[in-house]
Amino acid sequence: MKTCRLAILGVTGAVGQEMLSILSEKKWPSNNLRIFASAKSAGKKFPFRETELVVEQLTPDSFNEIEVVLSALDNDVAQRFIPIAVEKGCLVIDNSSLYRLNQQVPLVIPEINPEDISSQNGVIANPNCSTIIALMAIAPLHACYPIQSMIVSTYQAVSGAGIKGMEELTTQTHDLQMNKIPQPAIFPRQIAYNLIPQIGSFDEEGNTSEELKLQNESRKILHHQDLQVICTCVRVPVIRSHSESITLFFEQDLDVSQVKVILSHAKGVKVVDDPLNYEYPTPLDTSNQDLIYVGRIRKQPIGNQTAISFWCCGDQLRKGAATNSIQILESYLKDYA
Amino acid sequence: MKTCRLAILGVTGAVGQEMLSILSEKKWPSNNLRIFASAKSAGKKFPFRETELVVEQLTPDSFNEIEVVLSALDNDVAQRFIPIAVEKGCLVIDNSSLYRLNQQVPLVIPEINPEDISSQNGVIANPNCSTIIALMAIAPLHACYPIQSMIVSTYQAVSGAGIKGMEELTTQTHDLQMNKIPQPAIFPRQIAYNLIPQIGSFDEEGNTSEELKLQNESRKILHHQDLQVICTCVRVPVIRSHSESITLFFEQDLDVSQVKVILSHAKGVKVVDDPLNYEYPTPLDTSNQDLIYVGRIRKQPIGNQTAISFWCCGDQLRKGAATNSIQILESYLKDYA
Repeated sequence: MKTCRLAILGVTGAVGQEMLSILSEKKWPSNNLRIFASAKSAGKKFPFRETELVVEQLTPDSFNEIEVVLSALDNDVAQRFIPIAVEKGCLVIDNSSLYRLNQQVPLVIPEINPEDISSQNGVIANPNCSTIIALMAIAPLHACYPIQSMIVSTYQAVSGAGIKGMEELTTQTHDLQMNKIPQPAIFPRQIAYNLIPQIGSFDEEGNTSEELKLQNESRKILHHQDLQVICTCVRVPVIRSHSESITLFFEQDLDVSQVKVILSHAKGVKVVDDPLNYEYPTPLDTSNQDLIYVGRIRKQPIGNQTAISFWCCGDQLRKGAATNSIQILESYLKDYA
Repeated sequence: MKTCRLAILGVTGAVGQEMLSILSEKKWPSNNLRIFASAKSAGKKFPFRETELVVEQLTPDSFNEIEVVLSALDNDVAQRFIPIAVEKGCLVIDNSSLYRLNQQVPLVIPEINPEDISSQNGVIANPNCSTIIALMAIAPLHACYPIQSMIVSTYQAVSGAGIKGMEELTTQTHDLQMNKIPQPAIFPRQIAYNLIPQIGSFDEEGNTSEELKLQNESRKILHHQDLQVICTCVRVPVIRSHSESITLFFEQDLDVSQVKVILSHAKGVKVVDDPLNYEYPTPLDTSNQDLIYVGRIRKQPIGNQTAISFWCCGDQLRKGAATNSIQILESYLKDYA
């Protein structure tokens, strides 16, 4: 892996921590990495390979000696600092939703549209987690057999709401065992032993921002503006892998065997689909790793169209966020730096 | 409520217990109710209104003085005893899946097809829980605007696997807090903090028996043999309300406001759909009661068809099983006894 003067912004969050861990696995040189967060975390130390890195306070002067920024900042803080980083000449790989639909900003999943990186003007956006996980399975099929529409129901882990989201699930579960009434803080309702059909905020038609992300980001990444998406996003009491039940409508007929061949050869995807031997993906089996797992692949007749249904799972913090960002970094350094 | 000489078979299970509780709420006369289970539970006592009922061992002679049987027996035991009860002249309202697709046996949700009761020949079948919960919302719409197809992803509570299923979730959660590795017994995988995309057994095309029930039972109840169903059933770590993410394709155009009007007037259905005020159904809010809650109602364009999506939740043991059986009993006693 080529290297550069790299910074992680928002290193204390769930995605920032995952970025640190993945860079360590990839043996990124510690003298080429600086880590930033808000003033209250400055001075905190994190082990990195054979050494320790010290968190620096993020300020407008943080970018003077940085070439590439991996940002895991929330939208509000990202909005303040990313323009400064770009102004200072950095390339920013951004995990917020701020720039994803900006026409000047490529939105990239490296297995799917790495060539879009070439059009960057200082920012490359990392897609939303549920978009990445769905498209890793959908894009290879769409490349061979164009899809017209997709109907998606998600089962999303609490890690999507960060460290505090994960803590809220375990705290509520513990409270219930102690006969204490759980108090929702991060999620709008109790999440322990419950489901919440709301992720993000609602528009006037009753869609959540999370549901619209899947539609709009999929259209941009696949370069398929006519793609029709019906999506229902649901938070479930699972720690860190998202799952999605997906039905695709194709323009032409195809069979389950063709789907399996295509997905078996798709980079970053693992087909686990032997139900008679109880083999199918679950969120627990697919956590703490980078592959997107696909199973329960079935062909279903609907009207005169061919529909293919499947179930996929992938770690929301890894391929859904940190891993994809670092793959963008690798792709950029290899082909464009 | 009219009365009769009634028996509950399988009273010690989760559905049997719920039947007992609902009959008590409805002030069923205790001297007109006998309760049966296997030999190992005989002699066990359950409180019922102002008295106690004693569990009797179920034998071929149990039916001599019984007019109507509410059966919550598993398929294997039901297969042995239901033909005997019918032979003895009882009407059996059966919760197993044995007779549901038998053309001589009506399959009834009293709000939807009560008139089918008239064709009974000794057995009336109670539909599968996820079928009842979905159709309570779908049937009133279909009656006004015929549907062509439905795409359903379920989020099914552990109560569907009975008392042992509920215990397995809480035991596994407790084990994890004690740093013990959970041991799956009832479910094929760990269910605590996990999802299992398998309910029932698989056919050669990769559909589960639970998924096929939704298709085949819906066709029979709606008298709509051409109905096309795509269904993915998933077990989730929730105690007792099932949830379903449903997309319906209609033959003609209709709007969200029409859907809301129809469902607001549908018996047994409650529309909770004010997302801007965080009002939508969750499994926790909809447990321990009889209504099916519908929310997140949206209209989505797909091709040149009108699709309506919604999210519904309902208690699996109540309306999904015991309540529906007792409503069949009430309907039978009122109109056909």
